[in-house]
Amino acid sequence: MSAQERVRAVLEHRFAQRAIIFVIVVNAITIGCETSAYLMEQIGGLLHAVDRIALTVFIVELAARLFAYRKSFFTDPWNWFDTVIVAIALIPASGPTSVLRALRILRALRLVSAVPSMRRVVSALLAAVPGMASIIGLLVLMIYIAAVIATKLFGDIVPERFDDLPRSLFTLFQIMTGDDWGNMAQEVMQDKPWAWLFFIVYILMSTFVALNLFIAVVVNAMNDTEPSMAESRTQAELEEMKQELAAVNAKLDQLLMREPTGSR
Amino acid sequence: MSAQERVRAVLEHRFAQRAIIFVIVVNAITIGCETSAYLMEQIGGLLHAVDRIALTVFIVELAARLFAYRKSFFTDPWNWFDTVIVAIALIPASGPTSVLRALRILRALRLVSAVPSMRRVVSALLAAVPGMASIIGLLVLMIYIAAVIATKLFGDIVPERFDDLPRSLFTLFQIMTGDDWGNMAQEVMQDKPWAWLFFIVYILMSTFVALNLFIAVVVNAMNDTEPSMAESRTQAELEEMKQELAAVNAKLDQLLMREPTGSR
Amino acid sequence: MSAQERVRAVLEHRFAQRAIIFVIVVNAITIGCETSAYLMEQIGGLLHAVDRIALTVFIVELAARLFAYRKSFFTDPWNWFDTVIVAIALIPASGPTSVLRALRILRALRLVSAVPSMRRVVSALLAAVPGMASIIGLLVLMIYIAAVIATKLFGDIVPERFDDLPRSLFTLFQIMTGDDWGNMAQEVMQDKPWAWLFFIVYILMSTFVALNLFIAVVVNAMNDTEPSMAESRTQAELEEMKQELAAVNAKLDQLLMREPTGSR
Amino acid sequence: MSAQERVRAVLEHRFAQRAIIFVIVVNAITIGCETSAYLMEQIGGLLHAVDRIALTVFIVELAARLFAYRKSFFTDPWNWFDTVIVAIALIPASGPTSVLRALRILRALRLVSAVPSMRRVVSALLAAVPGMASIIGLLVLMIYIAAVIATKLFGDIVPERFDDLPRSLFTLFQIMTGDDWGNMAQEVMQDKPWAWLFFIVYILMSTFVALNLFIAVVVNAMNDTEPSMAESRTQAELEEMKQELAAVNAKLDQLLMREPTGSR
Repeated sequence: MSAQERVRAVLEHRFAQRAIIFVIVVNAITIGCETSAYLMEQIGGLLHAVDRIALTVFIVELAARLFAYRKSFFTDPWNWFDTVIVAIALIPASGPTSVLRALRILRALRLVSAVPSMRRVVSALLAAVPGMASIIGLLVLMIYIAAVIATKLFGDIVPERFDDLPRSLFTLFQIMTGDDWGNMAQEVMQDKPWAWLFFIVYILMSTFVALNLFIAVVVNAMNDTEPSMAESRTQAELEEMKQELAAVNAKLDQLLMREPTGSR
Repeated sequence: MSAQERVRAVLEHRFAQRAIIFVIVVNAITIGCETSAYLMEQIGGLLHAVDRIALTVFIVELAARLFAYRKSFFTDPWNWFDTVIVAIALIPASGPTSVLRALRILRALRLVSAVPSMRRVVSALLAAVPGMASIIGLLVLMIYIAAVIATKLFGDIVPERFDDLPRSLFTLFQIMTGDDWGNMAQEVMQDKPWAWLFFIVYILMSTFVALNLFIAVVVNAMNDTEPSMAESRTQAELEEMKQELAAVNAKLDQLLMREPTGSR
Repeated sequence: MSAQERVRAVLEHRFAQRAIIFVIVVNAITIGCETSAYLMEQIGGLLHAVDRIALTVFIVELAARLFAYRKSFFTDPWNWFDTVIVAIALIPASGPTSVLRALRILRALRLVSAVPSMRRVVSALLAAVPGMASIIGLLVLMIYIAAVIATKLFGDIVPERFDDLPRSLFTLFQIMTGDDWGNMAQEVMQDKPWAWLFFIVYILMSTFVALNLFIAVVVNAMNDTEPSMAESRTQAELEEMKQELAAVNAKLDQLLMREPTGSR
Repeated sequence: MSAQERVRAVLEHRFAQRAIIFVIVVNAITIGCETSAYLMEQIGGLLHAVDRIALTVFIVELAARLFAYRKSFFTDPWNWFDTVIVAIALIPASGPTSVLRALRILRALRLVSAVPSMRRVVSALLAAVPGMASIIGLLVLMIYIAAVIATKLFGDIVPERFDDLPRSLFTLFQIMTGDDWGNMAQEVMQDKPWAWLFFIVYILMSTFVALNLFIAVVVNAMNDTEPSMAESRTQAELEEMKQELAAVNAKLDQLLMREPTGSR
């Protein structure tokens, strides 16, 4: 057994995989604890130490995987996913990059790539996206058009909501989620009494398209599921009948062959 | 090849269609940029020029389509759609018609008619509407009845919400979307403590009808989908068995024909 | 043709049914107009006159139906529905019964019983209710239990929300619809920091049960739909094959009968 | 008949079961009445007496069940459920344990174990949970990650929302339900204008995962339902055809056996 094969065997061992999941969970908890000023005062050193150990484990594991699988390492998108997540932690986090420090918790997402059932769920979620592309495109187009109209018509009346295009886009996304739209509409309607038409048309249309987006996902999910119990029973019975029919056919052939001779 | 056929060939060429999509997208972006005072100051002239060029392209394309397809131009509803959208931009937009200027962005909707996959999605959405007519009618009837009752009973208590019929209709639509209904109801209940009955009955009924509207759409969508994998396998097996059964039947006919002669 | 049969023929005539629908719609509009002080000043007399005429038409129609169908009039629940709605308008509406005057608009609901497609939709909606009884019971039980707990624990802290059982029931219904629950919870949590547990458990459980209520309705609706195209094709093919198989069987019987004689 | 069998017969008698349901409902109502200060003053003694009687009935019934079923009592999880609920009421409720007094109303949940149709519904609901474990895990992971990021980035700006991890978790759960998120986001965006990215990504992702949680439940429910009418008709026809085909086969065997002898 070469070194490469031995490393691969270790990596694929149940115990190693569970150890990695354990490290991920512990690290997720310690990063969470780091948000507490009280805990940082008390056991800040310990938390940092655990964090550094976890990071080392992840890097060693990634290196081992790279060594064990060589080129095929790069063909699995989950390996790319793990590499990017670990890489975020390696960027030196000085002053202005404090956002990157906050993103260290994304390491907890490694749980998704480490637990097979979660991996399947996420793959299924992502597989649903391409089928929804057209409807998502339509929804984005609709929000964009509504935002341009709202900026031009209501920008002067309620500037804190519709001042410029980005703000209008945010406001219209908020309206689509149904949050607090009534007050916004009333504010605008004090100046432009016909504005209810814009809001109601926008809500009806965006809800209708979002609803159909939803239905597309459900219908896709339905068609992808394995046949139901009833269907597979039907399949099984059809199979049996087909075999019996073939037997009948064969016997008839036998009869047809023999008869003329028999009656001579 | 006549001039008409040549124009048609150009219009249906993949390159021409992509060029149109490109012009639509660029135009949608420039109209969006026009909402920014800063950009208008800097490159206002360029934006207007692009807008005018795009409009010219659209008019020329429509004229070419009219020339190429003659009468059949008018049988495709998407052509009517494109014509109306372009026509909006040609109405002289002086002072009070500033709304029309804002509606120029509707041109971005031409993207729907230009991209086949979006065209299919929108056609599917519209095809779902007639089947929902009865439930939509019921929902509208329910909101109207509730609005008349609310205006008569609560019009004097909370005039800013239920003053007249249009206002009540708006408020009840807002309640149906679940936005901020609790506060409204509490305001009314300070004067009429039994008003909770009205609000809860209205919310339960409108939610239930809206839910069934939704279910009607899902069930329709399900029935329209092509048969699932399992179903088409069943179909295929049935087809095979039918052929085998026909063969069996034919052989039996052969036996029946021959036997009596054979045994004579 | 007896008088009874002649009345029945008139009632079932397409023209008579459309006339009734027309009267219902006109009456619904005039009752709506009565909510406007301006319109009442201008054409109040006309509106009242139309209302009285419509009411007369409804009473005459009901009497005619009672005369035409006799006992079977009472077996159709829609007739009861129409009778109750018309009866509301006949109750003398003096001072304190102004609520009853507002309920006159319920007459517009006669549209449901008069338009066959709406009748079907409402029948379908009502038919779905019994199947949901257990889940609705569970939901009501859950809200009741939560209301008792909330009244006992939070009644002293936020009396305007959880003062007594009816108020708590209203508040918890509002929380279930997701309206403004965050602020309520924060108000309570200022005094009882662990109150988030109550709110989150309540929201998760009520949402989960409501979701399953919804699913029960969808699954019911699915099972009630006629077989899909694929299924009915399967049915048709099975029918054909069954007939062919029966023919095969009959021919074999013929062979079995003849053979021994033929070979003697 | 032994004493054990006699007790079992009594417990399983329709009348005894209805009596228990009656006691549960009455007890639920009296506990509800105890929340009213007015009713406690008037008939407080009666309410307490009914409560004590109901509790006695429950304890006697549980003891009888334990006596009647012996060991098998502990194999039914519903018995454990009933025992825990009754036990809550027996804990001495002095000062600080007033929460436990409020939990007495949980006894109303005994209705679920006593009414068979509710029992089935709850069993079905619980049976759906394991299939959703992965998606629920993903959702919890997502909220946790978002909470850590929000605490680190927004903790100083809006401390009343994102001060520490538990508070951020609560706030993000609230955002996921769509309650009042617009105002929160705007508050944060006053200081960090790019914060909209965090909120919109979080809302889109949590909604998408929650949606797929929902779809998983629907698809499960669909597959668990008995075959539809059309499917069971197909099954029945297949069964008939199979029998007919077997008969055909048997007759052919008969023919094959006889022929050679007959033609000798």
